[in-house]
Amino acid sequence: MRINPSPSYSILVRLQIPREPGIIGRISAAIGEAGGIIDTIDLVSRTEQASVRDILIEASSCAHQREIIQALEKVDNVYLLSAEDLTFKYHIGGKLETGCKLSFAKPEVLAIAYTPGVARVCTAIHKNKALANNLTIKRNTVAVVSDGTAVLGLGDIGPEAAMPVMEGKCQLFKEFGGIDAFPICLDTQDPEEIIRTVKLLAPTFGGINLEDISSPRCFEIEERLKAEMDIPVFHDDQHGTAVVLLAALFNALKIVDKKIEDLKIVICGIGAAGTACANIMLEAGAKNIVGYDLGGAVYKGRSGDHEHLQAFAEKTNPEMEQGPLSEGIKGADLFIGLSAPGVLKQDDVKNMAADPIIFAMANPVPEIMPETAQPYARIMATGRSDYPNQINNVLCFPGIFKGALRCNASAINEEMKIVAAHAIADLIPADELNEQNIIPSVFNENVVEAVAQEVERVARESGLARERADDASLYKMEI
Amino acid sequence: MRINPSPSYSILVRLQIPREPGIIGRISAAIGEAGGIIDTIDLVSRTEQASVRDILIEASSCAHQREIIQALEKVDNVYLLSAEDLTFKYHIGGKLETGCKLSFAKPEVLAIAYTPGVARVCTAIHKNKALANNLTIKRNTVAVVSDGTAVLGLGDIGPEAAMPVMEGKCQLFKEFGGIDAFPICLDTQDPEEIIRTVKLLAPTFGGINLEDISSPRCFEIEERLKAEMDIPVFHDDQHGTAVVLLAALFNALKIVDKKIEDLKIVICGIGAAGTACANIMLEAGAKNIVGYDLGGAVYKGRSGDHEHLQAFAEKTNPEMEQGPLSEGIKGADLFIGLSAPGVLKQDDVKNMAADPIIFAMANPVPEIMPETAQPYARIMATGRSDYPNQINNVLCFPGIFKGALRCNASAINEEMKIVAAHAIADLIPADELNEQNIIPSVFNENVVEAVAQEVERVARESGLARERADDASLYKMEI
Repeated sequence: MRINPSPSYSILVRLQIPREPGIIGRISAAIGEAGGIIDTIDLVSRTEQASVRDILIEASSCAHQREIIQALEKVDNVYLLSAEDLTFKYHIGGKLETGCKLSFAKPEVLAIAYTPGVARVCTAIHKNKALANNLTIKRNTVAVVSDGTAVLGLGDIGPEAAMPVMEGKCQLFKEFGGIDAFPICLDTQDPEEIIRTVKLLAPTFGGINLEDISSPRCFEIEERLKAEMDIPVFHDDQHGTAVVLLAALFNALKIVDKKIEDLKIVICGIGAAGTACANIMLEAGAKNIVGYDLGGAVYKGRSGDHEHLQAFAEKTNPEMEQGPLSEGIKGADLFIGLSAPGVLKQDDVKNMAADPIIFAMANPVPEIMPETAQPYARIMATGRSDYPNQINNVLCFPGIFKGALRCNASAINEEMKIVAAHAIADLIPADELNEQNIIPSVFNENVVEAVAQEVERVARESGLARERADDASLYKMEI
Repeated sequence: MRINPSPSYSILVRLQIPREPGIIGRISAAIGEAGGIIDTIDLVSRTEQASVRDILIEASSCAHQREIIQALEKVDNVYLLSAEDLTFKYHIGGKLETGCKLSFAKPEVLAIAYTPGVARVCTAIHKNKALANNLTIKRNTVAVVSDGTAVLGLGDIGPEAAMPVMEGKCQLFKEFGGIDAFPICLDTQDPEEIIRTVKLLAPTFGGINLEDISSPRCFEIEERLKAEMDIPVFHDDQHGTAVVLLAALFNALKIVDKKIEDLKIVICGIGAAGTACANIMLEAGAKNIVGYDLGGAVYKGRSGDHEHLQAFAEKTNPEMEQGPLSEGIKGADLFIGLSAPGVLKQDDVKNMAADPIIFAMANPVPEIMPETAQPYARIMATGRSDYPNQINNVLCFPGIFKGALRCNASAINEEMKIVAAHAIADLIPADELNEQNIIPSVFNENVVEAVAQEVERVARESGLARERADDASLYKMEI
């Protein structure tokens, strides 16, 4: 199966082209015949005889990039000046930087924001530590913490190689939530060391976003940090995925007119995300969830299971199903995939209950491609941006943290996650809801604020919000 | 002694003023009589009858701020609308933020810089960890690490209260050196924990700037980190101060026509900075340095001394002087103060050798005020921006790190510090060198690059520079 061309394999080629009719057509045809998709064609310069143009082309792999370049080299009279792999070009020097809210170019600003003025601010915080929430970056700054053990679909690639993902995550925090996030990739895989280190970083950060830490270590690390820190701790791979999945499910159930309590749910892949998805659906009322891993159905008493799977089995599989996915899928209403490409077959979809719902979220290649599932699936969602119904964590975490930071919440509780899911689902108006549109786009500008408001409301109602000094009271002088 | 008004106590007052001749004069006079200095007078709005104006006024203390406000309230026909303490206003929400080098607003950028494109970059770094120096923020990012135990002149105020200083330091890194720095304030004072934590952060950072960690703990922490990490580790309170002091000394000695080997040097305050200043002067050829602390002269075998003072005594005080500063200062050529306000008396200066040099760097109030020393001192420098010859670390650390990061240096060695001092000193041309001008302004735009070039040169010569893959080789495709 050839994957569609994607911007992730974009190449930017610079061509010198004679000024003659039909030449752009021949170039475009060559790219098209090679399977590339043209994004843009820009004019760089022009003389009487020739023009120089930049063409941005999506390919589907490194090999495909080379094929396209070779195809271009064969076009008569066209001279290839350069070709760049944009993914690597965009990553040179990293993607994140720091910015100063005040410029120090004026000496008086230096004297106010640094020595000697800053000493007055330090003294104020020393007298009342809570003022750190007014007078430092803490109140809007989140650490994106990883040990690099479960990065994307790549696995344990180490903390250095995890950095580009964490930098990207920090960009998402900033661009979508207005939150300043900073990547912290730790050179250890020891849960105790990770826990201890993150706790020691608390004076700088107002929240902790755990990321790409392998299961089951991630569960202990998150639970311990939640218990031992007084700021929000959120393992996005677990809860971000779970919240957005639940939002999609809420809307899907409206379409198929089923209730969550009545569903037979099959989850394939019981890692961090699969476990959290099961938990949030149980919280939301689901009764019959069966998990599958490489050993088939997870059931109470299955031999050799890690305690995290035993705990999972305690809460799921009420009918003690055993055997392979291809058996368990029969009659299921909902398939949730957080595992690997291709594990769900077309025949499996045929065997599901009426109006089957498929959330196949393995990235970048889902458990079943939409083309394959579509003839039989009523509703299909994936993690991909190039198909309808993208289940993407970015719908959740910027708003969750924004709401929590805004009210100085000490934690993110279960109810905050559930209302976040409702807030996301409710952004699709009833008259726009359909099989191809169960979840808002990541570029929907209302998502973050909708989620933040609900999260803040619940934080206040559940007593997790904490008073913060009024900013103006710190600098407005009595007159 | 009343301290001069300073921008650090700036107040911004908003006044409603009738439109009548002489009124601004009366307001200005009232501020002046109260001892305030007017920075700016801005017009906010105007009607037929009245105008609203913002006046920025420097005061010398909180009490003085109030006196100025009271003086303004007494001016006839002037109505005080508001008064703000700018130091606190500028600190609301902290001073630093993150920025994205690429905007994610376009879906194709998201697909390139985040999933799925980022996976290709992660894989490349996983295969060759050194590529982290090309493809992540590591190569231009420094951690500003503190435990809050020795912040400015405030002492052990804790990591939360240290944050405003560390944020300011990060701004200095960015504004003066173009380096992305991030504050890391640690909730521990245990040297082993600090060392361990900083080492665990290595995948994210290309350099470590230690800051405001109390002596003698700072020595062990820095030495251990230098030995156990392969990136530059620099305790700025020690070495930044020492480098700039040495630069000032190089130029001062040209004026008084003395040689460093021949000087009798008295250092008052043997903490982090005092120790480093002694060390760098020894490195530069000084033979006769005597340190003073609250117990008088530090000498070999003095009872009760910490091992760090014993080590200091081993290298200094060749004549085994004992007794108080007022004795030791007699006949000294150079006084270096890194201690407390007012410890050096005018009589002490009178007792020094011919052409005495005074570097009184206690902040914000020096060991002796320039007005007091000046009649007898030939050359006077302080840490203050409102007197000539400001010895300010910002002349050093941005350039030192810039030079080291640029060539991927594994460490900052002694020679790099000495050449940095020469580079700073040499920025004062011979025909501009005089008693009032021995050190460039922090706003001298040539400082950072001059220091960086020398540091990079020595790093290369001493084998500390490390190869880094050519950026273009990572994205330029063969054609």
